[in-house]
Amino acid sequence: MYRNYSVRTDLALEEKERFESDDVEIQGVVLEEEYDEEQEIRVTRVEIKTENGAKAMGKPVGTYLTIETPDLAVPDDESHRNISEKLCMYIRELIQKNRKEKEPEEDFSILVVGLGNRDVTPDALGPCVADHLSVTRHIVREYGKYAMGVEHARLISAVVPGVMGQTGMESTEIVRGIVNETHPDMVIAVDALAARNSRRLNRTVQIADTGIHPGSGIGNNRIGLTESSVGVPVIGIGVPTVVDAATIVNDTMENFITALESSESLRGVGEVLRSYNPGEKYEFVKELIAPHLNGMFVTPKDVDEMIHQISHTISEAINMLQTAG
Amino acid sequence: MYRNYSVRTDLALEEKERFESDDVEIQGVVLEEEYDEEQEIRVTRVEIKTENGAKAMGKPVGTYLTIETPDLAVPDDESHRNISEKLCMYIRELIQKNRKEKEPEEDFSILVVGLGNRDVTPDALGPCVADHLSVTRHIVREYGKYAMGVEHARLISAVVPGVMGQTGMESTEIVRGIVNETHPDMVIAVDALAARNSRRLNRTVQIADTGIHPGSGIGNNRIGLTESSVGVPVIGIGVPTVVDAATIVNDTMENFITALESSESLRGVGEVLRSYNPGEKYEFVKELIAPHLNGMFVTPKDVDEMIHQISHTISEAINMLQTAG
Amino acid sequence: MYRNYSVRTDLALEEKERFESDDVEIQGVVLEEEYDEEQEIRVTRVEIKTENGAKAMGKPVGTYLTIETPDLAVPDDESHRNISEKLCMYIRELIQKNRKEKEPEEDFSILVVGLGNRDVTPDALGPCVADHLSVTRHIVREYGKYAMGVEHARLISAVVPGVMGQTGMESTEIVRGIVNETHPDMVIAVDALAARNSRRLNRTVQIADTGIHPGSGIGNNRIGLTESSVGVPVIGIGVPTVVDAATIVNDTMENFITALESSESLRGVGEVLRSYNPGEKYEFVKELIAPHLNGMFVTPKDVDEMIHQISHTISEAINMLQTAG
Amino acid sequence: MYRNYSVRTDLALEEKERFESDDVEIQGVVLEEEYDEEQEIRVTRVEIKTENGAKAMGKPVGTYLTIETPDLAVPDDESHRNISEKLCMYIRELIQKNRKEKEPEEDFSILVVGLGNRDVTPDALGPCVADHLSVTRHIVREYGKYAMGVEHARLISAVVPGVMGQTGMESTEIVRGIVNETHPDMVIAVDALAARNSRRLNRTVQIADTGIHPGSGIGNNRIGLTESSVGVPVIGIGVPTVVDAATIVNDTMENFITALESSESLRGVGEVLRSYNPGEKYEFVKELIAPHLNGMFVTPKDVDEMIHQISHTISEAINMLQTAG
Repeated sequence: MYRNYSVRTDLALEEKERFESDDVEIQGVVLEEEYDEEQEIRVTRVEIKTENGAKAMGKPVGTYLTIETPDLAVPDDESHRNISEKLCMYIRELIQKNRKEKEPEEDFSILVVGLGNRDVTPDALGPCVADHLSVTRHIVREYGKYAMGVEHARLISAVVPGVMGQTGMESTEIVRGIVNETHPDMVIAVDALAARNSRRLNRTVQIADTGIHPGSGIGNNRIGLTESSVGVPVIGIGVPTVVDAATIVNDTMENFITALESSESLRGVGEVLRSYNPGEKYEFVKELIAPHLNGMFVTPKDVDEMIHQISHTISEAINMLQTAG
Repeated sequence: MYRNYSVRTDLALEEKERFESDDVEIQGVVLEEEYDEEQEIRVTRVEIKTENGAKAMGKPVGTYLTIETPDLAVPDDESHRNISEKLCMYIRELIQKNRKEKEPEEDFSILVVGLGNRDVTPDALGPCVADHLSVTRHIVREYGKYAMGVEHARLISAVVPGVMGQTGMESTEIVRGIVNETHPDMVIAVDALAARNSRRLNRTVQIADTGIHPGSGIGNNRIGLTESSVGVPVIGIGVPTVVDAATIVNDTMENFITALESSESLRGVGEVLRSYNPGEKYEFVKELIAPHLNGMFVTPKDVDEMIHQISHTISEAINMLQTAG
Repeated sequence: MYRNYSVRTDLALEEKERFESDDVEIQGVVLEEEYDEEQEIRVTRVEIKTENGAKAMGKPVGTYLTIETPDLAVPDDESHRNISEKLCMYIRELIQKNRKEKEPEEDFSILVVGLGNRDVTPDALGPCVADHLSVTRHIVREYGKYAMGVEHARLISAVVPGVMGQTGMESTEIVRGIVNETHPDMVIAVDALAARNSRRLNRTVQIADTGIHPGSGIGNNRIGLTESSVGVPVIGIGVPTVVDAATIVNDTMENFITALESSESLRGVGEVLRSYNPGEKYEFVKELIAPHLNGMFVTPKDVDEMIHQISHTISEAINMLQTAG
Repeated sequence: MYRNYSVRTDLALEEKERFESDDVEIQGVVLEEEYDEEQEIRVTRVEIKTENGAKAMGKPVGTYLTIETPDLAVPDDESHRNISEKLCMYIRELIQKNRKEKEPEEDFSILVVGLGNRDVTPDALGPCVADHLSVTRHIVREYGKYAMGVEHARLISAVVPGVMGQTGMESTEIVRGIVNETHPDMVIAVDALAARNSRRLNRTVQIADTGIHPGSGIGNNRIGLTESSVGVPVIGIGVPTVVDAATIVNDTMENFITALESSESLRGVGEVLRSYNPGEKYEFVKELIAPHLNGMFVTPKDVDEMIHQISHTISEAINMLQTAG
């Protein structure tokens, strides 16, 4: 039941959907969905439990939570507070699951990493989240946790490592160096993602306890940001802000084939093309795409507004960790 | 000989190419090309001389100069100075052609308008050019032209009007108000453009004496910036920094049809599709594209570097107008 | 009872205080103060009612409201919402007072002008306020007021004119041009101010119905933004973000003189200096200050945080005008 | 010959001047000056050779080069290229002096650290320099030094660590972590400095092989960036962009005392004050200054232009290291 092609997506949800469309159950992968009708928030939980499941999904064993809501793009303060609270709840769940030891609450420290390129709007999500955080590590270290007015303080620090074209270094090298020096218990890495489906832009947040993977994001990190590369557990928070050029061509081809099938004279071609599996079709499209389209991405015109709003919502969710539950 | 469809492009050069591919001469339109082999700069001059030519081209009567060079994206100071000098020479040509009267050199004043959205990287070209200009109007007005150390000073002023979603006003309203108040002899409007062909990104500058037209650029101004809308001649400087999503799908379809034709079993379909004219094909593609793709654009990942470099080169060209020839 | 020297301040409150310290009542000037103990907000109302009062105060006839609160600099969402509501209430009062005719509510339109230099942190307050506004003019004009979901819509537009060194034009020229073209009923101009007293930084907002005056602000506009210069009433909103270099030297001199008076051997000098009036002392200090200190300003290190927070609070107050009372 | 007070300055030149004004020779400190009349560039070399010299100067043993030129603030490309070349020459000298071993040229790697706060204009010098660098480490590592088209490549990497209020970490922690991970042979740290004398703003660059010291710069790093704290030699490049508030008051007091001495009636006080030594006077002034003035700085109004130009000049100097001499 293997598939040796890859319609790459950073969202476990989209990976899973691909199989669903083939009516296939994948061993070792559990999918649960819940929908909060009042708040219009859909949460999908993909648990990859075994190495076989991981192989089939092309993603490591772990928990992938996807929060989808149209309100993520709507400028309404109350909605955003609700979403922040929900995101905080799920981040906390993954923190609890991945804490190495049962050390006392107050010692727990988190390094937030804002991945991506500050100077390219759709890639600036990570840096923007870091900009809006209330960091506390230096205050707690200087004045003690009581300076924070809470009983169990989290020590939050943050860094924007930049991208390789600006720094000459892999983000992973920078983060590993800082982790070795400042010893956080966990890393939360925030990155803008590329989605397969342009309908996901503006409305989706994925939280996973498997970190950020090679080739993820817009800037295509070559080395992942994971527990094995940086030394402490990494929770990855990703928001699709672009789709890649090949993807939108591929989507159009699907529509084209459907159109051919409904045409008297051309039905034959449609059927021939339909017989290709998704991977073959994607490869076919990639060949057709002019080579200079590689390295290009597709993004909405109001991307600046979207980055501004969503980064505030995610910062707020991380700030809420401070008042530890 | 009319064409009632529209494969929209902001570049007169691309409009003309469309006809060439059909082996058609257009009356009232003259095309000249020159190539500087040493500097690898190709200059194409499209002169639309008659209303018939304008109708066929879908662009007003005027002069459209396109400067193409791979060096526009290469970070080499000397190349950029050469390009700035060339751009300055052509801007000067269009200024001379459009000067209303033969008033003395020293009275000549230019308002530079940086169109586009400062907060969206590929649309920030105009604001970036304005940021790097050396404005002189206030100095000449306060201290006289001798303060500039030149004999024939140009009074250069600059404004970044912002986009409608930020200001609630059309750029044209803002510019017309400022023109009525400050009486420049001419406007130079700089804007990021959408190209049809992604190969043009990074390497093309168009200079035209017909201003900026409705629906041009990334932000889709609804009212043009032209002599008739602002009251003085408008020289438009445009650089393609994005292609629209429909365009890249369209390009791929072309390759697809070619591929079908060379396939034994599918040749028939290819031939049927080939018989469609470009407009029909484009409409077909637009229908296939999912509606949420409208309002999206395609841009290269290194767009920030590109905007940074090209905006400096264009600012430098306009600054060189100061030392009037 | 005239004073022909000038210890310049943009705050009417500080101008008034100067007289108070001399125990003088100024004819034609009324001062009222109220203090909300719970919210720690002090509101001072200076009404300059006559030309004589204007002469004595060095400020035009009109209403000057100063809102002072330590919470302006404290990052607490709820406090800021309270302050925004209070600011909105006072802006509304000045709008009502200055509306030319009793035209129906729904026709009322406001142009917000963000004065200052976007690239110099303490001068960026005006541009930041404009960035965070929800402009509505284009929506109401396109879709009618019902698109806003309110019964009496305000048409809000906004512009960031830039500073003369960037544009070559006076801000007033730009604003007058735009007013003539787009016909707002009123202008609200937001600017960063220089205060006399560094304790006012971070905690003070002045709202006045006399506009922005020549030499106000950090950038020293040479022409004011007033009803007589732009053609419609101008409400000025100012926040002190810097003090000028001469001011802090002057403050220190005051302390110095007091120190001298309490010293056995130096008492005589203190008394001689004390006999100078404030204007003489200020002139004396200005002579002592090295000439290269002119054009310099004093600002706190955390000025970026302060600008960020206060600009959001003021934007929010203006956005609240939308739901007209 | 000790002095137990401190008129703090980040410039060794200013520290030395303080002694000169007292006509004192300091053992273990050598000062040389050269002046290029044509280019109007003055270079002062302070060599602190012994621990005694270090004690007297309040600065560690090492070489401090100060380059002063009015052209640093003048927007003339050719001047800036000359200055970049001169800066590059001196940086190279300090690199040669501090290279640990005689390893082959091509292995030499440098980490450039842009210290300071990107969001506060006068503190943004370091981040701006990093933004304009051409980093090469990743290219040389991937494609070999021949990809750079030079025989002896330098591997240049760069990082902007941010300030403690944004990151919760000391810059030194971040840099030490990255050094331990990526093993550069040397660090070049660029920072905006506070000067004692406001005449030095805009026109001075200090290059020293002793790194950046605690309390230096605008942001007041608490831990220095030196060979002992990060593990490899650190060359510090500093540019004064602010003076602190106490300093300008102090300067004015000097003028005040001079004025008193020339006054018939007040001469006595002037003489009493003159008998204070500089440290006593500075302490006196600090007491007089209102406490809320601490944490404030004085900066010129055109600081954005200045930062823009000077950061380009320094980036260019570091980029020139690439073509190793």
